[in-house]
Amino acid sequence: MAHLTILGTGNMGQAIASVAGKGGHTVQLLGESDLATAVTGDIVVLAVPYPAIADVIAHRGASLAGKIVVDITNPLDFETFDSLVVPADSSAAAQIAAALPESHVLKAFNTTFAATLTAGTVGPLTTTVLIAGDDADAKSTVAGVFTSGGLDVIDAGSLKRARELEAVGFLQLTLAVNEKVSWTGGFGIAA
Amino acid sequence: MAHLTILGTGNMGQAIASVAGKGGHTVQLLGESDLATAVTGDIVVLAVPYPAIADVIAHRGASLAGKIVVDITNPLDFETFDSLVVPADSSAAAQIAAALPESHVLKAFNTTFAATLTAGTVGPLTTTVLIAGDDADAKSTVAGVFTSGGLDVIDAGSLKRARELEAVGFLQLTLAVNEKVSWTGGFGIAA
Repeated sequence: MAHLTILGTGNMGQAIASVAGKGGHTVQLLGESDLATAVTGDIVVLAVPYPAIADVIAHRGASLAGKIVVDITNPLDFETFDSLVVPADSSAAAQIAAALPESHVLKAFNTTFAATLTAGTVGPLTTTVLIAGDDADAKSTVAGVFTSGGLDVIDAGSLKRARELEAVGFLQLTLAVNEKVSWTGGFGIAA
Repeated sequence: MAHLTILGTGNMGQAIASVAGKGGHTVQLLGESDLATAVTGDIVVLAVPYPAIADVIAHRGASLAGKIVVDITNPLDFETFDSLVVPADSSAAAQIAAALPESHVLKAFNTTFAATLTAGTVGPLTTTVLIAGDDADAKSTVAGVFTSGGLDVIDAGSLKRARELEAVGFLQLTLAVNEKVSWTGGFGIAA
């Protein structure tokens, strides 16, 4: 069994905690007011909005060395909903990996709405989590946690693929905001 | 009923022709050897690989003025399968629109494998075609053709969203090539 720390108590943090719990794993769920509480998980999920990431890294970065760090952000310009705020040839995950060189940084969960994690389904399909990262062992560990929680997990490749995952997440958010898909639907994957 | 010209007789061109035919529309399907045959469709689908687009535009560009032009390409680096060959802040569709200023250029069909167009399904879901473009009437016309052929169609926004559609297409191709999804599956959309 794994022990996770989830930083962020919003709907995504809670949904990810719920899936991990279903798989029999333990979760330390920390909110903004828990800054003084040390991270105990070996897998740390950054379930905060992208603009809050810099602060999390500033406060907690040193304590994340050696750990698996999962970036779930969609770095949108939430004023225009028409672009990402990271450079076109980069990604939030790449920035976080550069800021946390001692951690094993993965991208995951940014292409799945919270409701599809909690339900375990996207329409008629089992919810699939796409993971990108450069550390195969870290990806395998995280995949094991969430498949045991009932989800499908696909290794989408190296951390370079975070750029495409963030494009998928961005597109899906624009579709939901424009009521083309619901917040309980979106992209599913048929094997 | 619409009359389409599809440039390209590969599996995507044939699949798109088959859906249009199901909807009762007429299709002129032209291959590489039909260079002397004039385009008769009001909707022209560029169903050729990205590297062949420049030639198509050089030979046929003038005759596409006033028409709806549908770009279905995934501009991958097919040697490395690790990047796109268009600039990170652009898209194949944006390049084609710049080269064909008198045409109404749309992006579509690059996120759906040929088999899912022919079958009309991605796993248990009806196949959804995502369309991006700046001309609402053109998008509506193309959507009508393919919904009448049994597919779901979602307006994904302005032509700027072609960048994200190309990221989805790229990601999906890498998943298929790496046997994470089959060529009869991939991304589906649950409303």
